[in-house]
Amino acid sequence: MPIEIPDVVIDRLPLYYRLLTRLEAEGRGVISSHELGGELGVTPAQIRKDLSYFGRFGKQGRGYSVQRLAQELRLILGLNRRWRVVVVGIGRLGRAISSYPGFEGQGFDIVGRYDANPAVAGTSIDGQEIRDARHLEADLSAAPADIGIVAVPAEYAQDVVDTLVRGGVRAILNYTPARVQVTANVELKHINPVVFLQSMTYHLKLTARSRA
Amino acid sequence: MPIEIPDVVIDRLPLYYRLLTRLEAEGRGVISSHELGGELGVTPAQIRKDLSYFGRFGKQGRGYSVQRLAQELRLILGLNRRWRVVVVGIGRLGRAISSYPGFEGQGFDIVGRYDANPAVAGTSIDGQEIRDARHLEADLSAAPADIGIVAVPAEYAQDVVDTLVRGGVRAILNYTPARVQVTANVELKHINPVVFLQSMTYHLKLTARSRA
Repeated sequence: MPIEIPDVVIDRLPLYYRLLTRLEAEGRGVISSHELGGELGVTPAQIRKDLSYFGRFGKQGRGYSVQRLAQELRLILGLNRRWRVVVVGIGRLGRAISSYPGFEGQGFDIVGRYDANPAVAGTSIDGQEIRDARHLEADLSAAPADIGIVAVPAEYAQDVVDTLVRGGVRAILNYTPARVQVTANVELKHINPVVFLQSMTYHLKLTARSRA
Repeated sequence: MPIEIPDVVIDRLPLYYRLLTRLEAEGRGVISSHELGGELGVTPAQIRKDLSYFGRFGKQGRGYSVQRLAQELRLILGLNRRWRVVVVGIGRLGRAISSYPGFEGQGFDIVGRYDANPAVAGTSIDGQEIRDARHLEADLSAAPADIGIVAVPAEYAQDVVDTLVRGGVRAILNYTPARVQVTANVELKHINPVVFLQSMTYHLKLTARSRA
């Protein structure tokens, strides 16, 4: 049984992975925890500690093999397979998400797009049909998905999440400002731009010049 | 001079704040670190440690005053004032961001919307003019902004960020998959859905049923 890794560590791994795949593409062989930390704004000690959860990579004073570390992170993060994603809510935001160019190359296949608006359901986006949201649960029974992205108006978020979970989806990315509930066996992340802005204003406030 | 607070702590404060304002609206007087932690998926010890950076809130065994803690976090995060935000790139994503209902109530005023596409510049969204991106730097000189949200195609991201920084913007929220560079005095956050999905697949992989 794997040991419990803190979520803050898990959340940093995709950033390590992203940097390492870039270095790999650039042909870099070895990288130090110092340089990794510098690129990512994390201390070298933190890098070593984070990676130590997953076994021994690299040798003291020799740095990490970029290729081996990237490959290990690919396995750790489950990126050596493809994941099926459905997007629910094809308004402005859902359209932007559906068209995001970064998913496919990273193993995330958008296999379904749903909207409850009768004027939207039945139309298509990027050549893919937008299905009526009424079909979501039945569709998931017929062809399961791993991840649901929720971009509906906030008041419908919980209903959609419940439907996704009933349909067997085990990870939800919630783009709505709604606070939704899931059972403990379902992964839930929120993307709320206000939360990002608020952690930046802490720093802005410290350096703010007074304005006349 | 303030002591250095780890970024992971700063990043959690908006989540505390969000929960506390909800509890405040519900009329709750006091909350324990245990209950705060339960709501947020953080240990009570972590809550106490995070808040201890900012002075002494609450008394051992008595819990925190919801109202006082919310008010302190408002001051710590700089949310007791209004912040001027410009959005650059009014495609699908930029439109969704511009219309996000959560900004204004939290003190973030979108004061400018910019796009380089001549077919988009000069049109309006939600009754607000979309300005030609060529005017961005001059507009910022005339009327500074605090925060820039970047939702342009990835290949233009660095140019837009440079223009924002030249115009005096000190915090950038980058919605593009591009890795952009800023000087140390500028705050930079990325919203990249792939990074969120990748930290969820770590958990999914651990519980994945094998599929025939």
